Amino acid sequence: MTNLFANLPQSLPEEVFQEILHGDGFRLERIISFGQATPAGQWYDQEQHEWVVLLSGAASLRFEGEEDLHVLHAGDFVNIPAHTRHRVEWTDEKLPSVWLALHYSKLEMPAR
Amino acid sequence: MTNLFANLPQSLPEEVFQEILHGDGFRLERIISFGQATPAGQWYDQEQHEWVVLLSGAASLRFEGEEDLHVLHAGDFVNIPAHTRHRVEWTDEKLPSVWLALHYSKLEMPAR
Repeated sequence: MTNLFANLPQSLPEEVFQEILHGDGFRLERIISFGQATPAGQWYDQEQHEWVVLLSGAASLRFEGEEDLHVLHAGDFVNIPAHTRHRVEWTDEKLPSVWLALHYSKLEMPAR
Repeated sequence: MTNLFANLPQSLPEEVFQEILHGDGFRLERIISFGQATPAGQWYDQEQHEWVVLLSGAASLRFEGEEDLHVLHAGDFVNIPAHTRHRVEWTDEKLPSVWLALHYSKLEMPAR
């Protein structure tokens, strides 16, 4: 892969997670969703921080304890501190949603 | 900033470099170019590795010793090892070129 929008499927039975780069204390991956959501009642609870940007499609995130969904469109990014429980409520059903996620261990400055 | 395509200018006298996130051993930044190129005869020669993706616009990179330009369109990415001398030959003059650059110190696996 040399393009984040290359080889996008027309439909997808499950989300796809593809590592792009793996360094000391971080991991960069492309995620492709196509209508998937986190299964009901399940939450992500991650050991590492995650900075993630949605590059195409649309999606919404829910953070535990927050009433409102966090709706993402192309270019929107969010920084998710480790152990911040969250789930994907929905992703675009008509177009692939391409995410670029940077998982990392240590934050030196607060995300802006 | 919470969107990589937010606050893009209609023109730009100089390239803009904006830090998004700064962790242990890496730095993530947004770069906006609008027709700029690396000044004639100059090369980037960086202490850190750089993974960079072009998200909008168009640009071309030249790597020292290589005959052909490396033309980038939206979604194209390239991994530039530390001290790999390179320069930006041109960027789109009609639209802003938005880059997302991950500067990092240590690579655990070869970039794919």
